[in-house]
Amino acid sequence: MEEELRSLLQDLETLKRSVPDPDQNDSINKLQQRVDKIMSMSKLGSARRSKVKDMSAEVVDSNPYSRLMALQRMGIVQNYERIRDFSVAIVGIGGVGSVAAEMLTRCGIGRLLLYDYDTVELANMNRLFFRPDQAGMTKTDAAVQTLSDINPDVVLESYSLNITTVKGFEIFIESLKRNQKQGANTGVDLVLSCVDNYEARMVVNQACNELNQTWMESGVSEDAVSGHIQLLNPGETACFACAPPLVVASGVDERTLKREGVCAASLPTTMGVVAGLLVQNTLKYLLKFGQVSPYLGYNSLKDYFPTMEMRPNPQCSNSACLERQKEYAQAKPARDALAKAKLEAEASLSNEGPLHVDNEWNISVVDIDSEKTSAASRSSDALPEGLMHELPSSDRLQESPLAQETITISDDLEDLQRQLDALNAA
Amino acid sequence: MEEELRSLLQDLETLKRSVPDPDQNDSINKLQQRVDKIMSMSKLGSARRSKVKDMSAEVVDSNPYSRLMALQRMGIVQNYERIRDFSVAIVGIGGVGSVAAEMLTRCGIGRLLLYDYDTVELANMNRLFFRPDQAGMTKTDAAVQTLSDINPDVVLESYSLNITTVKGFEIFIESLKRNQKQGANTGVDLVLSCVDNYEARMVVNQACNELNQTWMESGVSEDAVSGHIQLLNPGETACFACAPPLVVASGVDERTLKREGVCAASLPTTMGVVAGLLVQNTLKYLLKFGQVSPYLGYNSLKDYFPTMEMRPNPQCSNSACLERQKEYAQAKPARDALAKAKLEAEASLSNEGPLHVDNEWNISVVDIDSEKTSAASRSSDALPEGLMHELPSSDRLQESPLAQETITISDDLEDLQRQLDALNAA
Repeated sequence: MEEELRSLLQDLETLKRSVPDPDQNDSINKLQQRVDKIMSMSKLGSARRSKVKDMSAEVVDSNPYSRLMALQRMGIVQNYERIRDFSVAIVGIGGVGSVAAEMLTRCGIGRLLLYDYDTVELANMNRLFFRPDQAGMTKTDAAVQTLSDINPDVVLESYSLNITTVKGFEIFIESLKRNQKQGANTGVDLVLSCVDNYEARMVVNQACNELNQTWMESGVSEDAVSGHIQLLNPGETACFACAPPLVVASGVDERTLKREGVCAASLPTTMGVVAGLLVQNTLKYLLKFGQVSPYLGYNSLKDYFPTMEMRPNPQCSNSACLERQKEYAQAKPARDALAKAKLEAEASLSNEGPLHVDNEWNISVVDIDSEKTSAASRSSDALPEGLMHELPSSDRLQESPLAQETITISDDLEDLQRQLDALNAA
Repeated sequence: MEEELRSLLQDLETLKRSVPDPDQNDSINKLQQRVDKIMSMSKLGSARRSKVKDMSAEVVDSNPYSRLMALQRMGIVQNYERIRDFSVAIVGIGGVGSVAAEMLTRCGIGRLLLYDYDTVELANMNRLFFRPDQAGMTKTDAAVQTLSDINPDVVLESYSLNITTVKGFEIFIESLKRNQKQGANTGVDLVLSCVDNYEARMVVNQACNELNQTWMESGVSEDAVSGHIQLLNPGETACFACAPPLVVASGVDERTLKREGVCAASLPTTMGVVAGLLVQNTLKYLLKFGQVSPYLGYNSLKDYFPTMEMRPNPQCSNSACLERQKEYAQAKPARDALAKAKLEAEASLSNEGPLHVDNEWNISVVDIDSEKTSAASRSSDALPEGLMHELPSSDRLQESPLAQETITISDDLEDLQRQLDALNAA
């Protein structure tokens, strides 16, 4: 539109030159002023902030990162600005994926890769993010439009394709591998699956197993009132083919649920909560603070949040998963040695002589179980003087086996089946 | 801007009449066509859908309510369209309040009353909802702009004022009382407090105690990693002055926490989760499904969600709270009689003779504890054939006293203090 307005100004200038009458010339001048005003108004409507080079912690109203950098001062995150080094891929830009993308964009993530093949419809307006005026656009185009306005610092890559097709899967894999990081198999730090069907989840699972790529899965039930997130680390945790969450939770095969032509219910609340839990765990994973949940459910009717851990199934049908399991088992001695070295380093650190011989204030180092207090959890538990966490520590809860329903899936498939039967009979 | 463009067209028309030369006249015609084009382009950018008279359940892409009306077909909500009869007031249109307003708008709430005195700043961009181009606008104006574009069916009332001033408090009370509903003390069905400081919470508490208005409180900690929601029903539950959540949870007086000039950390994730939990409980409360949580905490470092119930403090410093407590106690015989009548009605219903004498399929009515299965929870547990809840029932959890940390605050203040001491010592 700016271009149109500029042409209008030029046309008026041409007209002015062809009109000799000073009175008419004057009215054309006024017309030009009017167009100038309209131009500035139209610019105001799409005003975008300029890119920033460094994340500043300065506390001024014009700093979009001040409240995020404050996480460092509050002792939650050691180095917030590292977020700019990370790349996250989001598969499925629907009710959960679009909100997850917006959250990561507002948090200042380095690079976002967005995958979807669908278009925006008015029927999507009961969930957050998309606007009615975007109806008809592809979801990836609409997302890039909105996200680049919100934060021009984020590098956005969008892929309008269906990953369940042969061609789509190829491009998906290639895009994940691009900009491969040192010591990594791909160019992304995490893949978030926000798709709404079993087939697409299995495809993300296949890609991540092949690439040895850590990912998080998310889902919302067809009746809109429950959901879950899950961390999948090939070889270490169950993959999606080892034990799909729904099968584990209810004994029902998810494939039978998503049917053609059925209009699923959905709510902006459930999807907003699931997106929030997903991205919060993404931040904890990337920036190394707090504890990343291996599985977290959300039953909104009762505000109940079950957790569980799932080890991989040695009889998994996915051959890439079996390969990753083998590698993970083979790497055990190296992992153990590394953990031991770390423990010893920490122990020797606390056994060193006093740094200051004078100890006027009688400060002493308290010996804490080093296993329990990694640098991350220690820094997040300690707040500056005068501040404290709003909620009591959940350590008491974690210690009680009954406190949160933690189900450990064993290696043995028959045993798994027995556990499921027991769960469903309960 | 549309008005400016219209004036421009008129000016061109005037100019055309004053210019006799047909060539110049022709160029002015072209200019008018150009302005017409710009006008249609500017309209396109802010395309809004037209209002709809009834919420349709029709499954077509153009229906913004199809996925919400599906909640009825799925057996979650008995009558979703009732949502259009409800009015909700949101105090504080910040990181939680703005998202709560957007969720309710997308759900098709009848009327929203929005209160805030602040303006949008770039420093707010690390939370959802506001856009950089809205910097400098009042939060209420910016919210009305965005929300009316999203859903023109919602009646929006915005109040750019500070409720903690004498004048602001007066207008706050008056606006809540307007359109008073039959049998109610106000014109709103629920007040949501989404403010960020102790003083404003105490003002909402005062207003709701005076008006005998049920409300929900929400909050996020200064370190951005935990939050809570709480239901407050004057006389029945603790009011905010009886026991502020922070005091209960950690033994620290909240007034000491929010200090001038301190830049609190904030995250779109934590605020999105708290807004989602708040509006989900609002929907459960208004549309009568599931269980409304009396208090729900969110500790994001450990994905821990404590719950508790708080009875009012008979020594509360708020006189309006004491009045409501007295009324609530006095109404006990009437409440008991009503509950008994309801129980008997349900019992007689299940004791009636069979509706169909033929019972080819041998269907029998199973006698369930009527206390446990209200109409709402029954309808939400039963899904149509082939569908099931994604997560297992949490009944097992509810039965175990250890399962979720439920703290019941007793009537006695000394006892409360002992409980707090024990909690903090743990």
